Amino acid sequence: MLSRTLCLLGASLACALVGVATAQTAPPTIPAEARAALGDAIAADHDQALSRLREWIALPSINAEQLNRQEGAELMQRMLLDAGFDTARIIPTDGAPGVFARLDAGAPTTLAVYFMYDVKQFIAEEWSKPPLEGQLVEREDGKTVLIGRGAINQKGPESTFLTAVRAFKATGTPLPVNIVLVAEGEEETGSEHFGQITGDPEVAKALSSSVGVILPVAWQGDDGSVEIFLGAKGVAEVQLVADGARSGRGPGMEIHSMNAARVENPAWRLIKALDTLVADDGYTPAIDGWMDGVRPLSGEDLALIDAGIRPGAEESSKKSLKVQGWIGGEDFRASLVRLASQPTVNIQGLVSGYTGPGGKTSMPSRAEAKIDFRLVPDMRADEVVARLRAHLDKRGFNDIEIVPGGIYGPTETPRESAIVGALVTALAGADVPHRLNPRLAGSWPGYRFTDPPVSLPAVFVGIGQGGQMHAPDEWYLIDAKDPKLAGMDRQALFFAEFLYALADKKR
Amino acid sequence: MLSRTLCLLGASLACALVGVATAQTAPPTIPAEARAALGDAIAADHDQALSRLREWIALPSINAEQLNRQEGAELMQRMLLDAGFDTARIIPTDGAPGVFARLDAGAPTTLAVYFMYDVKQFIAEEWSKPPLEGQLVEREDGKTVLIGRGAINQKGPESTFLTAVRAFKATGTPLPVNIVLVAEGEEETGSEHFGQITGDPEVAKALSSSVGVILPVAWQGDDGSVEIFLGAKGVAEVQLVADGARSGRGPGMEIHSMNAARVENPAWRLIKALDTLVADDGYTPAIDGWMDGVRPLSGEDLALIDAGIRPGAEESSKKSLKVQGWIGGEDFRASLVRLASQPTVNIQGLVSGYTGPGGKTSMPSRAEAKIDFRLVPDMRADEVVARLRAHLDKRGFNDIEIVPGGIYGPTETPRESAIVGALVTALAGADVPHRLNPRLAGSWPGYRFTDPPVSLPAVFVGIGQGGQMHAPDEWYLIDAKDPKLAGMDRQALFFAEFLYALADKKR
Repeated sequence: MLSRTLCLLGASLACALVGVATAQTAPPTIPAEARAALGDAIAADHDQALSRLREWIALPSINAEQLNRQEGAELMQRMLLDAGFDTARIIPTDGAPGVFARLDAGAPTTLAVYFMYDVKQFIAEEWSKPPLEGQLVEREDGKTVLIGRGAINQKGPESTFLTAVRAFKATGTPLPVNIVLVAEGEEETGSEHFGQITGDPEVAKALSSSVGVILPVAWQGDDGSVEIFLGAKGVAEVQLVADGARSGRGPGMEIHSMNAARVENPAWRLIKALDTLVADDGYTPAIDGWMDGVRPLSGEDLALIDAGIRPGAEESSKKSLKVQGWIGGEDFRASLVRLASQPTVNIQGLVSGYTGPGGKTSMPSRAEAKIDFRLVPDMRADEVVARLRAHLDKRGFNDIEIVPGGIYGPTETPRESAIVGALVTALAGADVPHRLNPRLAGSWPGYRFTDPPVSLPAVFVGIGQGGQMHAPDEWYLIDAKDPKLAGMDRQALFFAEFLYALADKKR
Repeated sequence: MLSRTLCLLGASLACALVGVATAQTAPPTIPAEARAALGDAIAADHDQALSRLREWIALPSINAEQLNRQEGAELMQRMLLDAGFDTARIIPTDGAPGVFARLDAGAPTTLAVYFMYDVKQFIAEEWSKPPLEGQLVEREDGKTVLIGRGAINQKGPESTFLTAVRAFKATGTPLPVNIVLVAEGEEETGSEHFGQITGDPEVAKALSSSVGVILPVAWQGDDGSVEIFLGAKGVAEVQLVADGARSGRGPGMEIHSMNAARVENPAWRLIKALDTLVADDGYTPAIDGWMDGVRPLSGEDLALIDAGIRPGAEESSKKSLKVQGWIGGEDFRASLVRLASQPTVNIQGLVSGYTGPGGKTSMPSRAEAKIDFRLVPDMRADEVVARLRAHLDKRGFNDIEIVPGGIYGPTETPRESAIVGALVTALAGADVPHRLNPRLAGSWPGYRFTDPPVSLPAVFVGIGQGGQMHAPDEWYLIDAKDPKLAGMDRQALFFAEFLYALADKKR
C-alpha cells in the first residue's frame, strides 16, 4: 500500500512541490577514512549487489495471491543474516510471516528499520523486459536502470541499504549505530497483520529502545532534490455495498428494469447513502463528527508550504495530474494547504449492474462503492468504521453494508527528531538539496511505529531514483550520467553517511 | 429491445399476473372445412417448417455487430415471397435494411404485421447445444423444444405465422384478410431507423389502410393462459457521464487518491447529479416537470388489475424476482398499480474507476450511470432528453453529459379495437384462457404504429411458449404433453383462426 499511496512521488514529485529547498554544504559527519573504505567496498561489491537484488526480485511474494509468503520471509531472513545481522527470526502471523533482525554494534544509539518483502502483482505480457529477471537497460535519458517487479517498491532501496550494512562488515568498520529491523510481507494488501509483528514482545522492546524508524527509499526528483515528509495522512479503505438479496431491499438477482416501478433499486439506495457522505460541493466530508478530530496546520506547517512554492510548480502539477484547476477554483497555495490538511472522502470506483457498452434494460441486485478516507491528526483510524456506521444508521441506511479494507492512522514526526536531523545533515553532506514537507498526502503503515505504544519518529531515508511502481517496467536507478542523481553505489554510501550522522546527533 | 423488455414474460408471467382470466367457449369463427384443410396442411408441413426455422436461425443478423444485415434482409424477403406474399421489397435505411411485403387477398380488411429479423448476441460456449443449429430437445417437463438464438425472440413465432400463411396457399384457401408486413433488423439495438421504414410512402399508405398491427408471439403461461396487453410503457435509455478530461472538473486520467484533497472527483460529481433525479425514497421521479404528462389509470384499468389478482400470484412474483417486498412496503395490488401506472428512473449500471476486488487508492477520471426511464401516456418520448438536460443545467450540472440511447414512446391500444376483439374471440375459440392487462410495464417499438401519423392499434398475438430470451439455450416450444400448451402446429393454426376472427369482426 505504500506504493499505492506514494506512487506519484517517485519521478514527478508532482503531488507536493512544497517545502524549503536547501543545499547548504556541511562537513560530512562520516570519518574520511571510513568513508573511503566503505566506498571502495561498495564499489567492489557492485556486481554482487546487482546479483543479490536480482535473486530477490526472482522470488516475488504476493500476499493477495498468497504467493511465496513463507519462501519470501525465509529469503528475507537469509539476506539479513548474510548482510551481517546477528540474528534474524521469522515471526508467524495470521497472514504472511514477518522477520525481525538485530545487529548489535555496541553503539549507544539504536535505529529501527522497516522493510517490506512483498511486491505488487504483475502481468508479464505488459512488460518490455521479464519482470522477474532484473535486466539492466541503458536509457536515452542517461539513466541505467534495473527493470523488475519490486525494483523501486521496495526491494531496490532495501537491498542497497543491506549493501551498506554489508560494507561495514567487509571493511571491519564498526557500525555507528545498532540496528533492529522489522520486515513484513503484507504491505501491498494493507499490512493487516503487521501489528502482530510489532506487538511481539522482543520486537516491541527493541523498538522502544530505538531513536526512530526509517524506510529506505530512492525518491530524488529529476532536479536531484529530496523531500522530507514530517508525517503522512492515514487512510481507511472501505467498500459500501447495497445488496438486494442480503438486505431484502431490492431484488436478489438482476431483473427486468420494468420492475423499477415496484422494486427498490440497490443502486439508488447506495447513491442516496453516498450522497450524505460529502457536502453538495462534492468534496467536503459531511459524515457526523468526521471533522471533530482535525487539527489545523500550524503556522510552521504553513510557512513550509509558503516557502516551497516554486515558479512553474503549479503548471507542472496540473500537467502531471491532467487537471485544469483546483477544488472550488482555489489557487495553488490553497490546493497545497488542502493537500496537507484536509481529510478526504474519495470514491475509488463504482460498480453495479450492467457495465458494458450502451445500456441494458435491467435492474441490478447489488451496487458497490469503493471508498478511501484520508485521515489527518488527530483523527483516529479505529473510529472510522464506527463513525461511518453511526452516520448511515442515523439516516436509516442500516441496510448499507460496510466492508472494511486496509486502515492506517496518520503519522507525525517532529522536525526536531534525531532521525530528521540526521537526514538533513546527511543530505547536506551529500550536496543533495532537500525540502521539508509538513505531511505526505499519501499513507503508509508507519502509524504502527509513530502511534503508542511504540511512539517513535519515522521518516523515509534515501537518495537515488526509481519509477513505475505497481506498473509494468518498474525500474530502479543503478547509474546516471546526471551527477545530481545518485546511482546505486552512491545510494549505499549515503545510507552509511546517514548512520554516522544519526550517531553524531545522539552523541 | 422487445426481448430486453419482455424477457420475463415468456415462462413465468411473473411481472404482471393481472387481468380478467376467461375461458368462455365460443364457436370458432373459422369455417370447419377450412380449419380441417389448413390443419392438415400445417401438419404435413411440420418437418419443412422446422427446416425453415433452422435455416433462419443459421443466419443470425446482429445489428450491434453489423453482422448479416443485408443478408438477413434478403433472407427475410425470400421467406416472405416463398410463403405466398405477392411482393417483398427491401427498404434501405441509414442502418439495417427493412423489408416490406404485401399479400392482397382481395379481402375488405387489411392487417399489418410487424416482424424483426435480428437477434441478440450470443456466446456459443455458454450453450448446451449449438446456438445456430436449432436442435430439438425432449425435456423432462414434457416439452419438446427447439434450441437456438432467436428461437422465441422472435424467429420461432414469426416463422410459425408464415407457416399459417403458407397453409392458405397450399390448400388454395383464400386468406380472410389482406396482409401488409413490415420487418426491421434493429429491434435489439433500439429500432433506431425503424421510422425510416414506416415513413416510406408505400409503407405509410399501406399501414394507414390497415385495421391494426400484430406481433406474433408465443407467451402462454404454464397454466395455458395468455395475457392481452392493451398498451406498453415507453422507454428512454441514456448514459449520464461525468468526465474530468471533457468537463475540466476533475482529472484527465486516473490519479492518486491523495489528490482528492484538491481535485474534484467525477464520481462524486455524478452522484450529486444523480441524487437530484429521484426523491429520497429512491424511486419517485424528481426531474423537473417529469410527472406533468402522467395520465392516471382509468377506473376500467384499475378494475382489470383488481380482477386479475389471483391466489398465489404475489408469492409467485416475489419468488421469480427474488424480492422480499414491494416499494414502500406496499401491498401486491399497489405494486401492480405501480407497475402499470408509474414512470420510472432506473439505474441499469454504474461504472467508474477501479472495479476489481478490494480497493485501489486512486481517483477515477470518469464516471458513468446507465439509466432507463419508463414512460406512460401522455409523457412524450421526444421531450425526455430536453427535460433531463434542463433539470441538470438548472442545478449547475451542465458538465454532466447525456448520451441518448434507444427511445420508445408509450403505446395504447383500445380494448374495443378489432384486433383485440379478434384475439379475444380466437383465444376463446381455442379454449385458451386470457386476461386483459391495461399496460405492459416493458416496452417495444409499437409506438411507431400507435403514434401519429400511423395511429393504429397494436397487440401481441399468439399461443405457444418459449424462454431464455437473450440468454443461452433460448428455446421455442414445438410439442408439449400438456394439452394446455400449444405446440408449433397448433400455434400456426391459431394464427389462421385469428385472421378469420379479425375478418369476422370487420364484417
